[in-house]
Amino acid sequence: MTKTYKTSKRIGIIGGMGPAATVRLYQEITDKTPISSEQDHLRLVIDSDPTTPDRTAALLGRGPSPEGHLLAAARRLASAGAQVIVIACNTAHAWFEKTAAAVHVPVLNLIDVAGQAVSKRCPTPANVGLLATDGTLAAGLYQRVLQRQGMAVLVPDPGGQQEVMEAIMQIKRGQVEAARASIHRQAERLIAAGAAASLVGCTDISVVLKDGDLPIPVIDSTTALAERIIAEAREESLR
Amino acid sequence: MTKTYKTSKRIGIIGGMGPAATVRLYQEITDKTPISSEQDHLRLVIDSDPTTPDRTAALLGRGPSPEGHLLAAARRLASAGAQVIVIACNTAHAWFEKTAAAVHVPVLNLIDVAGQAVSKRCPTPANVGLLATDGTLAAGLYQRVLQRQGMAVLVPDPGGQQEVMEAIMQIKRGQVEAARASIHRQAERLIAAGAAASLVGCTDISVVLKDGDLPIPVIDSTTALAERIIAEAREESLR
Repeated sequence: MTKTYKTSKRIGIIGGMGPAATVRLYQEITDKTPISSEQDHLRLVIDSDPTTPDRTAALLGRGPSPEGHLLAAARRLASAGAQVIVIACNTAHAWFEKTAAAVHVPVLNLIDVAGQAVSKRCPTPANVGLLATDGTLAAGLYQRVLQRQGMAVLVPDPGGQQEVMEAIMQIKRGQVEAARASIHRQAERLIAAGAAASLVGCTDISVVLKDGDLPIPVIDSTTALAERIIAEAREESLR
Repeated sequence: MTKTYKTSKRIGIIGGMGPAATVRLYQEITDKTPISSEQDHLRLVIDSDPTTPDRTAALLGRGPSPEGHLLAAARRLASAGAQVIVIACNTAHAWFEKTAAAVHVPVLNLIDVAGQAVSKRCPTPANVGLLATDGTLAAGLYQRVLQRQGMAVLVPDPGGQQEVMEAIMQIKRGQVEAARASIHRQAERLIAAGAAASLVGCTDISVVLKDGDLPIPVIDSTTALAERIIAEAREESLR
């Protein structure tokens, strides 16, 4: 029996938070998919809604909730025939259960996928340096998953975390180069504090920090998601 | 009255032909949209279906028609709430009328948009060097539009056009650097033949040839489409 990928599942991506991060995910899926012709690439539907209210602001009680936008995007993707849905924003996973409950299509959890990627690269126990939004930290999304896996989570001190947030906002506004230096500086400070691996737990940060940039492994939530999407899309045809 | 962009039209993009070309379009829309915060970016739905049969092969009678895939993608985007639809593949415009007739949503014509961009950059009469697929040339898509605008169209000689097609197939397979040299060589040959401007009439070629790369203006159909999408999305809120 020949493996055929042409009947692979159509994957729906809730994106645009920000758009540069979703461009990066789409690029990475395209680059990493093993193909022999254009027709072997995955079928995707990307709903890019950057008008979704800021997730960190909502989690810190400083802005409206993104919930309505996330649920509407999931429903649009289901209407467009998505057979599996992912949310391409770590912080938005504070609304994961509600989003998943809004559609009859399975929704993959990026936090779990990235947590599994950490376990593969990094034997426990280990200190994992986490670069993420204030919202992701406040919601405890990665702390829960990583501590369950026997990992200790290191985060920047308050001044350092403020620099991380400013860099994320710069990336969202397209000021990528200014952000790169800030993120690399904070990643290095987490290494000095004992991090054995760096977890890029924000798809915006993925735009400026890659595996190979640091003397320790960089586990990138965007890369982990791209790899999982490829595996998931093709699972059906590989069985 | 304040200009607000937050109610801009949701644009649907029929893409994935190939995916690298659609990544490039999404990136360019993101880079070119004037914003003060993430929430000012456009709402897009991208249907990336690389399993769409090869358009050139179909036009040359050597493969199945992409029509069913194009119409289905347009319908999925309409179901997902797209208010304007574009087809991010020049050659697919041989099926433009049928695709546009399949949905009640207006569909923008990339060939017309790129033709208008040529007129803006290049006073008539002029010789325009066209880099496009065999299918786009055979269907006469650009010849019709450009000749109506008083432009003469220069295309590579048969050996040169074969190199262009091989480069396009390389880009579709991710072999971008090998393709770049071929495309630049053929663009230079069109300059030697008298081209006053170079029209990148294939979204795959946009990945490797940009304005500024040649001593003559490069009019890129992907760039023209990105600019038109931004104008179209915001038209409603600017009125």
